Amino acid sequence: MSGREFFTARTLAEVRAGFRPAHRTPAERVPLAEALHRVPVAGITAPADLPGFARSTVDGFAVRAMDTYGASDALPSYLDLLGAVRMGAEPDVAVRAGGCVAMPTGGVLPPGADAVVMVEYTAETMPGTIEVTRPVAPGGGLVRADEDVARGGVLAPGGRPLRAPDLGFLAAAGVTEVAVHRRPRVAIVSTGDEVVPPGTARLGPGQVRDATASALAGLVADAGGEPVIAGIVPDEPGALKDRLTALLPESDLVVVSAGSSVGTRDETAGAVAAVGDVWCHGIAIKPGKPTLLAECAGIPLIGLPGNPLSALVVFGQVGVPLLWRLAGCESPPPQPSTRARLSRDLASAAGRLDVVQVGVRDGLAEPIFGPSALLSVLTRADGYVIVPEPATGLDAGTEVEVVLYR
Amino acid sequence: MSGREFFTARTLAEVRAGFRPAHRTPAERVPLAEALHRVPVAGITAPADLPGFARSTVDGFAVRAMDTYGASDALPSYLDLLGAVRMGAEPDVAVRAGGCVAMPTGGVLPPGADAVVMVEYTAETMPGTIEVTRPVAPGGGLVRADEDVARGGVLAPGGRPLRAPDLGFLAAAGVTEVAVHRRPRVAIVSTGDEVVPPGTARLGPGQVRDATASALAGLVADAGGEPVIAGIVPDEPGALKDRLTALLPESDLVVVSAGSSVGTRDETAGAVAAVGDVWCHGIAIKPGKPTLLAECAGIPLIGLPGNPLSALVVFGQVGVPLLWRLAGCESPPPQPSTRARLSRDLASAAGRLDVVQVGVRDGLAEPIFGPSALLSVLTRADGYVIVPEPATGLDAGTEVEVVLYR
Repeated sequence: MSGREFFTARTLAEVRAGFRPAHRTPAERVPLAEALHRVPVAGITAPADLPGFARSTVDGFAVRAMDTYGASDALPSYLDLLGAVRMGAEPDVAVRAGGCVAMPTGGVLPPGADAVVMVEYTAETMPGTIEVTRPVAPGGGLVRADEDVARGGVLAPGGRPLRAPDLGFLAAAGVTEVAVHRRPRVAIVSTGDEVVPPGTARLGPGQVRDATASALAGLVADAGGEPVIAGIVPDEPGALKDRLTALLPESDLVVVSAGSSVGTRDETAGAVAAVGDVWCHGIAIKPGKPTLLAECAGIPLIGLPGNPLSALVVFGQVGVPLLWRLAGCESPPPQPSTRARLSRDLASAAGRLDVVQVGVRDGLAEPIFGPSALLSVLTRADGYVIVPEPATGLDAGTEVEVVLYR
Repeated sequence: MSGREFFTARTLAEVRAGFRPAHRTPAERVPLAEALHRVPVAGITAPADLPGFARSTVDGFAVRAMDTYGASDALPSYLDLLGAVRMGAEPDVAVRAGGCVAMPTGGVLPPGADAVVMVEYTAETMPGTIEVTRPVAPGGGLVRADEDVARGGVLAPGGRPLRAPDLGFLAAAGVTEVAVHRRPRVAIVSTGDEVVPPGTARLGPGQVRDATASALAGLVADAGGEPVIAGIVPDEPGALKDRLTALLPESDLVVVSAGSSVGTRDETAGAVAAVGDVWCHGIAIKPGKPTLLAECAGIPLIGLPGNPLSALVVFGQVGVPLLWRLAGCESPPPQPSTRARLSRDLASAAGRLDVVQVGVRDGLAEPIFGPSALLSVLTRADGYVIVPEPATGLDAGTEVEVVLYR
């Protein structure tokens, strides 16, 4: 227990604005079925017009719009039924003045027609004659050949994770493979002589199972990364440095889940300084102050606090946006949240951002306090409230935004 | 184009309350690393107390709290330094009256001690003597042996998808495998003679690529299901019925993405009626009215409208909650949302729920209109606004909740 820590903490805003390693994962091509939430390296454009032909959007009759002008129940237009369009087939009949062609929804508009009148406003009064009781404007009842997207238009923008409807739009355009950023590989290194693998059935005196690595792996997966659990490094001089040196070349981000004593923290700081440039050591956030950020040959490294709760809070605030950026996405997807009223006063120091775990019930956010050594504080919470840096606290009854866990 | 449709539409609330097939997916055991967002079949309990020993939460000195009472900068307590606790090891020294033992964060509390005073409030004024300048209460600076959870206590409740921190908590307790509901298998059947696979390079006249199946697969995956794209069924009598009969035994949910013409819709309704009980044909929702719900030998079936946009809206409103329920989760995880003001009036019929796609910019929700045949309406949207059944519309400027896509 040699020293104490003296470091100037950076605010979270400073970290987000200033700690921006330029590394991005390279592109890879993946089939559409594996592209959900992946980030296109560039805008994906349409190889051809969509739908590619003027297409009926209703069941009804293809007409020349002008033939229906003025039509009403009292004074219908009467049109000759010239034929029918079959689904998925080229029309074998054209529409001429005073004529119409029966159309299924989705059918190809026949030549000569410029609108489709809905079947609801028609009746076949005599065989071969269709009575139309409502006018339709040109373009009514159909989509144009390039109305969904014109050739060369953007199907999905670069830098924004692909959503389910995007996959549909790409499929419609015949794009079955997309160039996306490779998932960032995140090496998760645990340290501490007291830390043993989760599979350890019986704990020795003072031992704890590695909780942080499994939880971090979940957060990494949720943020589109590929977690690589890289084991537990003992508190021996040089051991962590050696492990980091081996992991850096095959990682896009390295996360060190530090032992929680001052001794292990010093060890981590020393090892990181030996393999890269420390950007800051300390963030003005509670819990989570003793966080270390570094860049090692272009690869970002986060040294997390030893307490699991603190580690997960910091990774959520710092690691998750960083992870999305590594995959080419500057604005991470929105998180679920709700408005609620604080059930009690929250104290906070000015200049420090507080992340407070809360349960939410009946519109009331109830803070869950407890040592950050306890994971149960986090698993009992429905989400968290942020008390921003300038605030010295929030009064009971204040309406707050609760970011919800999912 | 034989008939028109006459059906009584159910409201979405009626569907959610009334269409509740009892089928649940069976349990399976999965390793922790694959358990993220999976639904435990029952509460998972702790096999032993956690952390299992009284554990220091600070760097400092284990003491008998009473020996520090009244201590201050002006009048410190002086304690004999009896030894030190090593991380991950049984203490080899006890604390007696007037004595203290050096403690790292996370160390095992030695016998005789009932609190840990933080190193910040101490100084080693003479070798072997520790000066304490602040009192500590019994239990201060430590967590009890069962403070995170007591043996038999709940680590994670049944029925709620596991979140990243849950994985950490389970790992801490040595639970490396969990019993969860199998992912619901969702067979996605497309119909329509005009529909061709997304890989079709060149479209024939009137053909469209199957967009809905790919997008649905994404929605299914997002809701924790396992999509099974079951191909395109031609509009031939009996073809759909045969396909459904083959798919039902190996599926937990069957989704038919219907052709969009009246003819294919009739075909779908007939095939479904032949293999199960139709629960309703028509939901009072726009877009999405011509939706069919059925139960086939206990397995739910959703017949979706033919337009991709309508199909995806309905699946989001009806299929997603159903899918979670099949996996044992009654309350789906929260979705991201934001409050915004409507940029313009929205009209709606009373008794019908409208799902309106919107873009969101600077706190303004801008409705995106367009035929529901266009997928681009959906991919251009940031989310949607719901105009509930009783409303006849919403005025421009109304503050609305926008459910955001992620």
